[in-house]
Amino acid sequence: MRMDVCQTVRRITGRKGRCIVQMVEIIRRKRDGETLPKAVWQYLIDGVVRGEIPDYQVSAFLMAIYFQGMNAEETVYLTEAMWHSGEVLDLSSIPGIKVDKHSTGGVGDKTTLIALPLAAACGVPIAKMSGRGLGHTGGTIDKLEAIPGFQTTLSKNDFLKQVREIGLAVVGQSEGLVPADKALYALRDVTATVESIPLIASSIMSKKLASGADAIVLDVKVGRGAFMPTLERARALAQAMIAIGERVGRKVHVLLTDMDEPLGRDVGNANEVKEAIEVLSGGGDKRLVDLTVAVAARMVLAAGGAGSDEEAREKVLTCRENGSALLKFEALIRAQGGDIRVIREPERFLPAARYEEEIRAERDGWVKAIDARLVGEAAMLSGAGRETKAKAIDLAAGIHLERLRGERVRAGEVLARLFAGSRPIPQVAVERLAEAFTIGDRAQDEKPLIYDIIDASSP
Amino acid sequence: MRMDVCQTVRRITGRKGRCIVQMVEIIRRKRDGETLPKAVWQYLIDGVVRGEIPDYQVSAFLMAIYFQGMNAEETVYLTEAMWHSGEVLDLSSIPGIKVDKHSTGGVGDKTTLIALPLAAACGVPIAKMSGRGLGHTGGTIDKLEAIPGFQTTLSKNDFLKQVREIGLAVVGQSEGLVPADKALYALRDVTATVESIPLIASSIMSKKLASGADAIVLDVKVGRGAFMPTLERARALAQAMIAIGERVGRKVHVLLTDMDEPLGRDVGNANEVKEAIEVLSGGGDKRLVDLTVAVAARMVLAAGGAGSDEEAREKVLTCRENGSALLKFEALIRAQGGDIRVIREPERFLPAARYEEEIRAERDGWVKAIDARLVGEAAMLSGAGRETKAKAIDLAAGIHLERLRGERVRAGEVLARLFAGSRPIPQVAVERLAEAFTIGDRAQDEKPLIYDIIDASSP
Repeated sequence: MRMDVCQTVRRITGRKGRCIVQMVEIIRRKRDGETLPKAVWQYLIDGVVRGEIPDYQVSAFLMAIYFQGMNAEETVYLTEAMWHSGEVLDLSSIPGIKVDKHSTGGVGDKTTLIALPLAAACGVPIAKMSGRGLGHTGGTIDKLEAIPGFQTTLSKNDFLKQVREIGLAVVGQSEGLVPADKALYALRDVTATVESIPLIASSIMSKKLASGADAIVLDVKVGRGAFMPTLERARALAQAMIAIGERVGRKVHVLLTDMDEPLGRDVGNANEVKEAIEVLSGGGDKRLVDLTVAVAARMVLAAGGAGSDEEAREKVLTCRENGSALLKFEALIRAQGGDIRVIREPERFLPAARYEEEIRAERDGWVKAIDARLVGEAAMLSGAGRETKAKAIDLAAGIHLERLRGERVRAGEVLARLFAGSRPIPQVAVERLAEAFTIGDRAQDEKPLIYDIIDASSP
Repeated sequence: MRMDVCQTVRRITGRKGRCIVQMVEIIRRKRDGETLPKAVWQYLIDGVVRGEIPDYQVSAFLMAIYFQGMNAEETVYLTEAMWHSGEVLDLSSIPGIKVDKHSTGGVGDKTTLIALPLAAACGVPIAKMSGRGLGHTGGTIDKLEAIPGFQTTLSKNDFLKQVREIGLAVVGQSEGLVPADKALYALRDVTATVESIPLIASSIMSKKLASGADAIVLDVKVGRGAFMPTLERARALAQAMIAIGERVGRKVHVLLTDMDEPLGRDVGNANEVKEAIEVLSGGGDKRLVDLTVAVAARMVLAAGGAGSDEEAREKVLTCRENGSALLKFEALIRAQGGDIRVIREPERFLPAARYEEEIRAERDGWVKAIDARLVGEAAMLSGAGRETKAKAIDLAAGIHLERLRGERVRAGEVLARLFAGSRPIPQVAVERLAEAFTIGDRAQDEKPLIYDIIDASSP
């Protein structure tokens, strides 16, 4: 098979010689805007995983893609090659339509912690692999590890068994999954080639496909605190991922949602778990509730658990109101060895902050805007995130917003608090958080939360 | 100085952290079409020479330059940084205006071997550093080494002394000259980023500037057998180099010349030396004579040895006719330890071929075209060139064209001969050479040789 690919690539490039020679021609063609056939993408990913293509050729190729793009076929070829570049999870032992969920990430984005129990409580089987975060806070796995005892590493058998038994399991992404994406992302990160729609789309989709789900709900965030700065680019990313799904026979649903403001009141790890429990208990900030219900409803719809969007929403709301979603979260924590007392007494059993700072309003008015990016930076500076994989997260660190956009405030009242567990909060974090707030003279109109929902079958 | 540059770059990028962090921001800015200030180019070249910037970042940056280009200022900043990245030759001990000459390279391009003695015989002091060739034949240095005993390595003192004494010396480019260009070129070569006008311009000019000349005559070749496929791109390269010259106070003259056809009748190493001797002796192909006289005349003009182009041409033609140019070549060979008997009896004292093949015309007609690229490939396949630096050249290998473009031929007559000294000539070389010839039914109009001459002072 490998010899075949090599020979095919030599035929395509018209060049003899080793990898490095083939790659010069492959880079040149992409640079000149040519469409590269399937064998070339296979060859490329194969070479990247085996370490046979030098990094400097891969990065030049990535930059050529940044400028020349990739068409729909090429994006599928790359996704397929990455998908099969390592371990692929087989979920067929779990009955039903397995639905995965992914968010492009944002500040205070604890959607997974809430939407998964909501959807699982409605009967959607969920075998979730999640990453660790790089950035302002940890990822879902880091957040769950704030629950004492919670194990995020399960054997494959235990993982599948748990989904069969309680309908939900969440573990760290297996090391063996999509090694090609790890290698490519590491390079993209240091060569200013992250922001390429086909590269982002194939990176996300290859991981979801290797995780074995039948349907995928994607939350693409737009705005100041998101990866995609504009709705136009977010929509292009959504469409690229839907197109991949169609070509590989997986239903993909995308929500385009706002990330100018942080999501909910808490940004961090332990405190985001606490806020998730709040929402699952029937409380919480309205925007956060609306978003998590919408995501969970899409998962129910994708799993065939409802005939219409409305019916799916009703089901999800019922599961939230009757406490079954919270029970599902409790079952998840118990199954993975966590201390379920965090459900009733989060303040007592989640990692506690030792340091606290607050920022106060300098004037009367209404909160006009809270810049998600600056809030994220303040959280990071407090210790809630990590810059490099090697760094440890302070799980108790984070931010609680006492006032959200549109809320009234009087001079001297607390706008937000910063927490930290291991090190005092640096002054720069406090300043950054203060900068994030804009106070205006008038009440604000409500801002749209969900810009659009695009389903695989929509035009 | 270095700390200054680092701090300046940090101020420019607005980022803290090491090289890798600065570079991501630098790549991003070039990618987004921003103009980068002087300090960034210094930082970049400094980092490349010290090996502190990873190759994968450099190659992504080069690809971003390929797409976004560089403006005139940036090209000068890069050239200056490269120029001073290593050893810089000081020619001030040589009286007069020192003129250097460079060709972008072509098939059968022995211009340097002829134009240098012509110009030196007219009194232009020439301290020439020349490279080894990668490609269809060797470079000037390889060709000169076909002369038994010829030493292409001289101490700096001996090199300068020889120029003071006989007005001409030709040595291999010092290892310490422009190390930044070596590093960048090695990467460009394997990442499909060679064909960028500002990168080519700064590569050539930094080497010429580090070689210490006061004025530079550039022969930019255009066509099938050249680096620049179109006159438009060749002109852009010429203008970029002239602009650099103007900014750093060096007069640059550019000839744009044809390279659709090979230059002269011989392609190889020993046989090109023989052809050079022929031209210096008053014979040789008309196009080759015209070009070498034009280049030498520009050198005489640049050195202030003539008041007009016409006067310079007259001087050069006189030096050719009265034998002083040939004497200068003989003096060069003697001074550098070579066997001067090659001048009178080249066939006897230059490396001799052991193998010979020929191709014959299949029909009557006129030679309509000789594809320089195919001739170059045939020469390479016969052993006249090298693909990698490590490979040895067969100095006796090469091609002699019995018929040139426009000449009449009858079926069965020899069109060209292939030679080799060390290994039999592969059949594929013979076929490639046969392919290079197109025989037509009619006589051909003469083809322009010199498309344009652009001087530093021209508009």
